[in-house]
Amino acid sequence: MMSAGGAGGPAGGDGVAAPAGPEGTGMVRTVEWQDGVVVMIDQRRLPLEEVYIRCRTWEEVADAICTMAVRGAPALGVAAGMGMALAARAALRAGTADPTQGSRAGGPEPGSVAGDPARFRAALQVATKGLFDTRPTAYNLPWALKEMERIWTRDDLAPAEVVALMEARAVQIYEDDLASCRAIGEYGAGLIQGEQPVILTHCNAGALATAGYGTALGVIRSVHARTPRLHVLADETRPLLQGARLTAWELTREGISVELITDSMAGYFMRRGLVTHVVVGADRITANGDVANKIGTYTVSVLAREHGVPFYVAAPFSTVDLSLPDGSVIPIEERAASEVTGFGDVRWAPVGVRVRNPAFDVTPAGNVAAIITERGVAFPPYEDSLRTLEAS
Amino acid sequence: MMSAGGAGGPAGGDGVAAPAGPEGTGMVRTVEWQDGVVVMIDQRRLPLEEVYIRCRTWEEVADAICTMAVRGAPALGVAAGMGMALAARAALRAGTADPTQGSRAGGPEPGSVAGDPARFRAALQVATKGLFDTRPTAYNLPWALKEMERIWTRDDLAPAEVVALMEARAVQIYEDDLASCRAIGEYGAGLIQGEQPVILTHCNAGALATAGYGTALGVIRSVHARTPRLHVLADETRPLLQGARLTAWELTREGISVELITDSMAGYFMRRGLVTHVVVGADRITANGDVANKIGTYTVSVLAREHGVPFYVAAPFSTVDLSLPDGSVIPIEERAASEVTGFGDVRWAPVGVRVRNPAFDVTPAGNVAAIITERGVAFPPYEDSLRTLEAS
Repeated sequence: MMSAGGAGGPAGGDGVAAPAGPEGTGMVRTVEWQDGVVVMIDQRRLPLEEVYIRCRTWEEVADAICTMAVRGAPALGVAAGMGMALAARAALRAGTADPTQGSRAGGPEPGSVAGDPARFRAALQVATKGLFDTRPTAYNLPWALKEMERIWTRDDLAPAEVVALMEARAVQIYEDDLASCRAIGEYGAGLIQGEQPVILTHCNAGALATAGYGTALGVIRSVHARTPRLHVLADETRPLLQGARLTAWELTREGISVELITDSMAGYFMRRGLVTHVVVGADRITANGDVANKIGTYTVSVLAREHGVPFYVAAPFSTVDLSLPDGSVIPIEERAASEVTGFGDVRWAPVGVRVRNPAFDVTPAGNVAAIITERGVAFPPYEDSLRTLEAS
Repeated sequence: MMSAGGAGGPAGGDGVAAPAGPEGTGMVRTVEWQDGVVVMIDQRRLPLEEVYIRCRTWEEVADAICTMAVRGAPALGVAAGMGMALAARAALRAGTADPTQGSRAGGPEPGSVAGDPARFRAALQVATKGLFDTRPTAYNLPWALKEMERIWTRDDLAPAEVVALMEARAVQIYEDDLASCRAIGEYGAGLIQGEQPVILTHCNAGALATAGYGTALGVIRSVHARTPRLHVLADETRPLLQGARLTAWELTREGISVELITDSMAGYFMRRGLVTHVVVGADRITANGDVANKIGTYTVSVLAREHGVPFYVAAPFSTVDLSLPDGSVIPIEERAASEVTGFGDVRWAPVGVRVRNPAFDVTPAGNVAAIITERGVAFPPYEDSLRTLEAS
């Protein structure tokens, strides 16, 4: 795996995000387009350091995805879209100039990429594959690549027009995601009743997993706005500890009551009746309502059903992959053994021990009480309700 | 919490345990009585270092228990017994000599502890309380203290006789535990059928949790002796990672096929049909068959039932507390937040986040297919089968 190479380094005043963020909400800036630079908070270093990385090429974006500087299915869609916009700019630049736009350096070189729409598009094909190959499970990533492909495959556009449209579409994906999270939050809050709800969540489906606000944490934020006595139990989410590092950080800094637990404690608290709802995000949802999400989500769903706790999935509709009939065909990424034998630079397992490290699991639709999207809430049977939302 | 103070430091030739251990088996030496010194491998430093600590006082044994240099219910029973033997020696020494035994320093001092059986016993009462207060959940610890109390409360014995009997009983508890583990292994192996069993285990119920050989890992060792194609999945067991550090280490060094997984992966592998049996240890078993064990065990039991995988508990009968009707009254230890916010010296959770850290949970008898003891295998209904074994 590549390191997030040339992208690195703190970005000066970008560092402390408290008063910045989307809509001036004080939320963290997960992924942003800043005139030809994709700026991301480095999630590998949270919560100990708030450092931003600046990607100037699609390869740097791919690096950041592979190494999980950016993660979370909706955020991967946003990053992939912006990565393609960078790729389009680079392909145009490689031609030095575009005949449709005038030129800094006096017209396209013979055989240059931008001067040759076929070579321009070939460069975008390479970038598409490069970004597609980063991580296999989240559907938002190929979804965003397809959105961009619908632009760069158009025969009626000159390369410079393609670049402009792709940049606009990348920013639109970002803005749509932010709006979707707000809508998901509102729809979700309508489902969470009670004077003093206790929501258990797994992994981080927060502002950091999206353009901002979050999916599962968007629901939690919206519930909290209505019911300040809301309490959250955050699974730490081994092996990469997104719950301990990211969810605990997001909620603590916003003053939402949260307690951190290990993944193995969820059953203990459910059995004691101390969890009223589960809300998680999703990496891919199939036509029948099966849900791929961070490893351990399936176990939480089994526990929720055992204890009569409703288990909700919150995700933008771009996570829904109606081309797949069910979760058995979702590709599940297996990641490096070193994630399990320790954390960061620390090792605690014996040298040479064998490891399994599936990064995701599939929760069957039967364990899911509802799927909360920006288009509305889908209830079982999901074959019908997801198709209805698709058409809406 | 105290550090394991004066006990510390590598113990020379004791360090590498490969050819040593009980019965020359190559197994690690968990807790041993060496003529007035309790020698333990420091489990906090495994698997990176094999370091032994030498406790010369009951207070040092209590420290080692509190700080989990020694852990595992049966091993705590052994350690507590040996701790009381140290306390008895010290109480006798405090009297300089015992009139029944002759003297190094010429007869008891006036008012000395040993010279005054009441003060001798008062000192042992203090040690009993000190050892009892170390950790609340495992039943073997108070069980061993009661075994010792039956000796030191006898009116017919002089202090020196009490000391001799207590030392003998402590060594006997150790030897009985070793023999129990062997018997548990054999009984358990009779339950594990199939050409290629895959056993999932949680935490460490191994040689390191007992005098040697182990309870759950005793079963695994016995199965492996019959069925070398046995494969083991070891839950890492957050927060203290006994599975990653201890179980993986024990099995790897003995050449038993093992893969390490995070606790959140157990459901994934069960759903794929890749687990044939679950075997775990126990900290306390109540009259109805409820089982307190390391946090996360309950979740594994729910998953096992969901997938039709038999869930077995392996424990010496000294873990069975027939005085408690069911698991709801077992005291559950909550440990320090720092165990959850990181590991060792590493911190990854945000500063100031609140934490819950119950160290144990209770698996209801209904999820337990059988309880494997050295007296035989108990099947439901456990009210009857455990009483029958008690009488055997």
